[in-house]
Amino acid sequence: MSNAPLTPRRAYQDLERRFARMNLVRDAATFLEWDAATCMPEGGADARADQLATLRVVRHELLTDPALGELFGRASEAADLDPWEQANLREMRRERVHATAVPAALVEARSQASSACEMRWRTARRKNDFAGLLPLFEEVLKLTREVAAAKSEALGVTPYDALVDEWEPGGRAEDIDRVFAQIEDFQPRLVDRVIESQGRAVRIEPPMGPFAADRQRALAERVMRALGFDFEHGRLDLSAHPFCVGVPEDVRITTRWDESDFTNGLFGVIHETGHAMYERGLPARWRKQPVGQARGMSTHESQSLLFEMQATRSPEFVGWLAGVARETFGGEGPAWSAAALLQRVQRVERSLIRIDADEVTYPLHVVLRYRLERAMIGGELRLRELPGAFADGMQRLLGVRPPDDRDGCLQDIHWPSGLFGYFPTYTLGALTAAQLYASAVKAEPDIPRGLARGDARPLLGWLGQHVHGLGASIPPGEIVRRATGAPLDPQVFRRHIERRYLDAA
Amino acid sequence: MSNAPLTPRRAYQDLERRFARMNLVRDAATFLEWDAATCMPEGGADARADQLATLRVVRHELLTDPALGELFGRASEAADLDPWEQANLREMRRERVHATAVPAALVEARSQASSACEMRWRTARRKNDFAGLLPLFEEVLKLTREVAAAKSEALGVTPYDALVDEWEPGGRAEDIDRVFAQIEDFQPRLVDRVIESQGRAVRIEPPMGPFAADRQRALAERVMRALGFDFEHGRLDLSAHPFCVGVPEDVRITTRWDESDFTNGLFGVIHETGHAMYERGLPARWRKQPVGQARGMSTHESQSLLFEMQATRSPEFVGWLAGVARETFGGEGPAWSAAALLQRVQRVERSLIRIDADEVTYPLHVVLRYRLERAMIGGELRLRELPGAFADGMQRLLGVRPPDDRDGCLQDIHWPSGLFGYFPTYTLGALTAAQLYASAVKAEPDIPRGLARGDARPLLGWLGQHVHGLGASIPPGEIVRRATGAPLDPQVFRRHIERRYLDAA
Repeated sequence: MSNAPLTPRRAYQDLERRFARMNLVRDAATFLEWDAATCMPEGGADARADQLATLRVVRHELLTDPALGELFGRASEAADLDPWEQANLREMRRERVHATAVPAALVEARSQASSACEMRWRTARRKNDFAGLLPLFEEVLKLTREVAAAKSEALGVTPYDALVDEWEPGGRAEDIDRVFAQIEDFQPRLVDRVIESQGRAVRIEPPMGPFAADRQRALAERVMRALGFDFEHGRLDLSAHPFCVGVPEDVRITTRWDESDFTNGLFGVIHETGHAMYERGLPARWRKQPVGQARGMSTHESQSLLFEMQATRSPEFVGWLAGVARETFGGEGPAWSAAALLQRVQRVERSLIRIDADEVTYPLHVVLRYRLERAMIGGELRLRELPGAFADGMQRLLGVRPPDDRDGCLQDIHWPSGLFGYFPTYTLGALTAAQLYASAVKAEPDIPRGLARGDARPLLGWLGQHVHGLGASIPPGEIVRRATGAPLDPQVFRRHIERRYLDAA
Repeated sequence: MSNAPLTPRRAYQDLERRFARMNLVRDAATFLEWDAATCMPEGGADARADQLATLRVVRHELLTDPALGELFGRASEAADLDPWEQANLREMRRERVHATAVPAALVEARSQASSACEMRWRTARRKNDFAGLLPLFEEVLKLTREVAAAKSEALGVTPYDALVDEWEPGGRAEDIDRVFAQIEDFQPRLVDRVIESQGRAVRIEPPMGPFAADRQRALAERVMRALGFDFEHGRLDLSAHPFCVGVPEDVRITTRWDESDFTNGLFGVIHETGHAMYERGLPARWRKQPVGQARGMSTHESQSLLFEMQATRSPEFVGWLAGVARETFGGEGPAWSAAALLQRVQRVERSLIRIDADEVTYPLHVVLRYRLERAMIGGELRLRELPGAFADGMQRLLGVRPPDDRDGCLQDIHWPSGLFGYFPTYTLGALTAAQLYASAVKAEPDIPRGLARGDARPLLGWLGQHVHGLGASIPPGEIVRRATGAPLDPQVFRRHIERRYLDAA
């Protein structure tokens, strides 16, 4: 830069320039991670880890550069920032506080411990060996609690809230408690009633596989197009675990095909398409700035679940989908009817495994994890007591008890890899999805009519205006409030479940 | 780092740490470039350009960091550096000099002008419109000459040599002249004699296509494995133009299939496999350091051509290959004989297009370009005179005259994209390949015996010891001298051509 005086406006502009660079370094890393999951030969893993670690360090050094202190100071005096610029400055600060709150040595120690524990977890889960994982797991928890304490001080929130804040900006246990208490109150009985109701229905046998992978892909691509996915700006690939990454101009989703049931892969693709459409719809003007990014994990998950659970499991969409599935696989008869498909994709079951759970039982899996992880971070639950506490919780909330730790507290990778404060966002996202969709359909009756003919444009129009185009300009709770006229309310989700699963019975 | 005094050893170690980071940033960019050519949807191009530009800037800033000056100063006093460390320090300096010699504004201007001209070249070539390209081309040449002048001063060599040095460390026109003068002297007559000799031979019709892409891939993968390619550490993909990129642990080559002639794709794959095996064999201890990288473009090209031209067009390998090709395509009869295949892959023709040329005519395409680009950089050849000078040179050296600029001076992307000083490395590589292979076969008679049974291990053993494992520890000319006992000698190449194309006749 020149020797011109550092006016507040110039300071702000310099920050924009620096954060654009940080974001582009992170985008570069994103595609290397995509490659590692989809293309990279196994022998390239160590070299890739080095490359990614280097990009992380480069980005971290840009973010913790002492020169940013003065720039933030000057920029905060700027009187001429428009609301987006103000929001952008606020998001820049948030990133900076998270990056500078924790001493580098602690960041490094936690990263090392998490990698080691995550690696061990892979075998420990397979061998149902909680005791063998315990020493590494203890270390991860200890270091995570230290990180939480450091961030707690910097952010002025509780240690657990400091961890939540990484994934859910402004997310606080106090608010989550208010919501989850209601879930814990009504959902177990709701599960009972839905399962009882479904037990009385006449079961239509779904079509028998095997379903060829290339036909499944053809169907998935057709559905993705119907939902607005643009293959000029994205891809569909295979990976061990489905995910969505990329940048708005190039969003990539992955899936895997289940030869015995085409709905598994398909609804996984729809879920990731929901994430992808959010990324695609972020405000173009702010693409390289913090305020132009997605608004945290609960909002992101609300978009995937709005597509997967609200829009495409609706009778309207399933009617269209059944026809397309028949065409694609050459199916006919009752097994291929819309009624059979609707029954298949709305099936509710008590199960041990969170990631296989349906929308009715899923929130209870999450509530359990939320209670447990708060207690672990708070120091009230010792790790060695976790298996028992987990099994007891499953019994209490879902009425099933895992026979072992493999299908109990060892089933998720999150905690062993140091991820605490993340689980709540799954259910906050599900509740948000229900509330957004109810308001969207009320405001735009053409949304379900569009879905009935395989056209998601009316839905995308509403989402673009009320969610996607807002980027990170307002807090997650504010997005819900403005779009629906009310704060996040689990009763809307309850009514969705009742209407879908009980009213029709 | 700590407050310990900056000893020469510590200064050197700090340089190693910094250059490791620079190399990892470049490696990251490498995979983003691979992705852009193989996977990326078209709509992602602008975002990718931003990501790559950012990584380049990050690397450039690391390399031009003023702090490096003091580190180089201190490190040069170190008395305890072993020969590899000394060589590494020398290579670090070389990179630094190239990076700091040119003012940032000029680097930027040249990069912009080259991008614009390269873009225009794509249509100008198609439309045979040299005049339309001229203004942008003039600008590129002007800025390239300014870069050459700046680097000339920093390196203490002539402007043209300064450009050569980017691709061929230590390469000097004086040495190239000595070699190319001999080529210019003997090669035109050699071409005449070979074509005359081949005209007398009885032509065996090669097999008719179409050859299915999946069968061509199966054959290519089998040949790659025979040549030592490890798919745990690499991939084969499709792209518009074949290339090889990656890191030693993860080398990726690309190709395209020609349905009418399977040898086109196959020998392209073999060429890239030669590049890949060089990368795979670089010294593991020095992987992240400048001294652990490949030794410039002529050495790299020597490895691809040693595989493509020397080893796999030999009667020994073609004998094995013909059998494998018959198996793969289910072929039989004279068209599928080793004799037919040998005739096909050793066919020599005068042609207008460099990239389609065989090993006998190719050097003359390069000599022409070398003469012309030296004159352009030296200011003796005006750009508007290039079409005529190019056509005259083709007539003189190859006996064919391009009917237009499309198949004349517009055929290559190099000059319009600002690449001067690169062409000579193709032929230096071909000569090096001939000389290395002759010495290798002499020292290890099991090399051709191995190739006859589809086993390249004896060859790889020799190359690992004499080329691959040396990294950038000694200059290119020194690699040749130590491996073959003599400096680069075009007469060895001439004898190879005579033996292969004339002795058998």
